Amino acid sequence: MKRSLQETFAPHNACFGCGQANEKGLQIKSMVEGEHVIADWQPQRHHEAFPGILNGGIIGSLLDCHSNWSAAYFLMQQSNAKTPPCTVTAYFNVTLKRPTPSKEPVHLVATVKEIKEDRALISAKLFSQGKLCATCEGLFVAVKEGHPAFHRW
Amino acid sequence: MKRSLQETFAPHNACFGCGQANEKGLQIKSMVEGEHVIADWQPQRHHEAFPGILNGGIIGSLLDCHSNWSAAYFLMQQSNAKTPPCTVTAYFNVTLKRPTPSKEPVHLVATVKEIKEDRALISAKLFSQGKLCATCEGLFVAVKEGHPAFHRW
Repeated sequence: MKRSLQETFAPHNACFGCGQANEKGLQIKSMVEGEHVIADWQPQRHHEAFPGILNGGIIGSLLDCHSNWSAAYFLMQQSNAKTPPCTVTAYFNVTLKRPTPSKEPVHLVATVKEIKEDRALISAKLFSQGKLCATCEGLFVAVKEGHPAFHRW
Repeated sequence: MKRSLQETFAPHNACFGCGQANEKGLQIKSMVEGEHVIADWQPQRHHEAFPGILNGGIIGSLLDCHSNWSAAYFLMQQSNAKTPPCTVTAYFNVTLKRPTPSKEPVHLVATVKEIKEDRALISAKLFSQGKLCATCEGLFVAVKEGHPAFHRW
């Protein structure tokens, strides 16, 4: 896969975390790599908690949107569909292991822990310069027609 | 209390979620109200997940920073200090109960569930137009001298 999931399936999406069309957003690009979904992302100054260190809320935003797209991808793969279902977050639990530097890019890695017909439990990790800085476990659910997110991508 | 905790104790802080000096940040203002710490915050267009609905990562950012300031306040109160200790997030667990409208302000309410000498477990809720949209439980720890966050406010 050479293009990200977002660029491939939702190029006009304006979500704060993953919308490629949101100029003020994080614009994460999640790439499939075997059994993992990965992303690299460079923080900017206004994403910091204090000088040199990335804010935990931004870390949560990155992990939430990256995990949500990972869930959408794994659900698409499971059902042999051509496009991913529109998924939303049920919950996400973020643990901050150590301060995350803001100068270097962060590296995200997500895997599927459990999958059912309409939902996936995703485990994700955030690294900086090879060190594990944060972890996340989240549940993401494919919505049905009638839900406001049904046409989100 | 007429001024927020952030304006009172950290007017020059530039944190993405709670820094009053971060023009591109969320600039939340947490106010003490009896046994609670509350905040009201108006989303902007680029904070959305999709049209009309607030992004879950932003919801997590609001709850994380608001809870962190609540912990700092309760720890200050417990020790009869004049200024709050610098606290950081150990973990925060966010549950999204229903889509959160982005047009109206959101209302945050935090309370302390458990407090020790150097840490507080905070429970927080996010409401929109009186409806509970998200909940958060997080652990926030006062850092010691030598930690990069020791002088964050």
